Amino acid sequence: MSEWFETLDGLHARLWQRLARGAADAKAPERHLVMATAGLDGGAEARTVVLRRVSESDALIEVHTDALSRKVAELAADPLAAFHVWNPRQRLQIRLRAQAEVITGTAVAETWARVPDASRGAYGTVPAPGQPIPQGDAFIRQPQMERFAILRAHVQDIDVVHLGEAQHRRARFQREGGWQGEWLAP
Amino acid sequence: MSEWFETLDGLHARLWQRLARGAADAKAPERHLVMATAGLDGGAEARTVVLRRVSESDALIEVHTDALSRKVAELAADPLAAFHVWNPRQRLQIRLRAQAEVITGTAVAETWARVPDASRGAYGTVPAPGQPIPQGDAFIRQPQMERFAILRAHVQDIDVVHLGEAQHRRARFQREGGWQGEWLAP
Repeated sequence: MSEWFETLDGLHARLWQRLARGAADAKAPERHLVMATAGLDGGAEARTVVLRRVSESDALIEVHTDALSRKVAELAADPLAAFHVWNPRQRLQIRLRAQAEVITGTAVAETWARVPDASRGAYGTVPAPGQPIPQGDAFIRQPQMERFAILRAHVQDIDVVHLGEAQHRRARFQREGGWQGEWLAP
Repeated sequence: MSEWFETLDGLHARLWQRLARGAADAKAPERHLVMATAGLDGGAEARTVVLRRVSESDALIEVHTDALSRKVAELAADPLAAFHVWNPRQRLQIRLRAQAEVITGTAVAETWARVPDASRGAYGTVPAPGQPIPQGDAFIRQPQMERFAILRAHVQDIDVVHLGEAQHRRARFQREGGWQGEWLAP
């Protein structure tokens, strides 16, 4: 028997398992991803996002954000985002590159209805996120569905690295090519 | 007395303290940063890097990498990188944007001499990192100084978020402006 990290199929199954766990379990390392985008002034930007939904069959993940946050403007300019997470127990780094679609308006109503009251404050800060304010607490929260956005990220490319004790392994899986996978030098 | 996260000076001191700790202590959360770069084909890329040196007075951080890794090619095309780390105990997200300088050749000899033998294998994989290989272990390690690069990142902009129990706080510090800092809506 091979270990899961010794085969392409094993790695592919494990990475989706872990992402699904992140969407379901607030304590999983995969709950919080770093999302990177191309900066509006060049270069890159990176910040934490919370993983909300995962579909392996459609190869997509979803996060929620304030429609006025800078990342939404960055995705409008260049929708190719990167997601990153490291799981220390699995010794597994997962990197995704994905075309992000920003969904707002009536299409988010059903999801918005399930957002707990205590969490809604994140969607509607006044002034908008990233605006200068005179004091650290000089803002209010006015939750509103108009400010709630689903970022649906259609995964194009997955790069995983397993740091084994004896051996590091790295593999890539691509939508184009039916996710069959190939080994890369680490 | 204010808590450290209630003042701009307190946040600024703490974030550099934490970065310095990351460079000194292999077990600190700040030891491993996510580094994001603009992708060669657009969008962004993100991966883990190890923090090797920090200078608050020069506002720079350093990481080491294989000179043939893709991130070096990405920085040659656009040197504006982003670094990200989340410290769960401090409840502190640190984001840096920095102009990265890639240093190789005789300028790295002194640093290379201090890299332990056991770590040198990371600089000289054959084939080069990211190249397809027929099996997961079909590569060798031939450490060589010519493949060792220091990424010296000159920090331009710092964005920190403290997730307090009652209150979230966000601040920005910029080189232009002498790092005096301002509050932002979170």
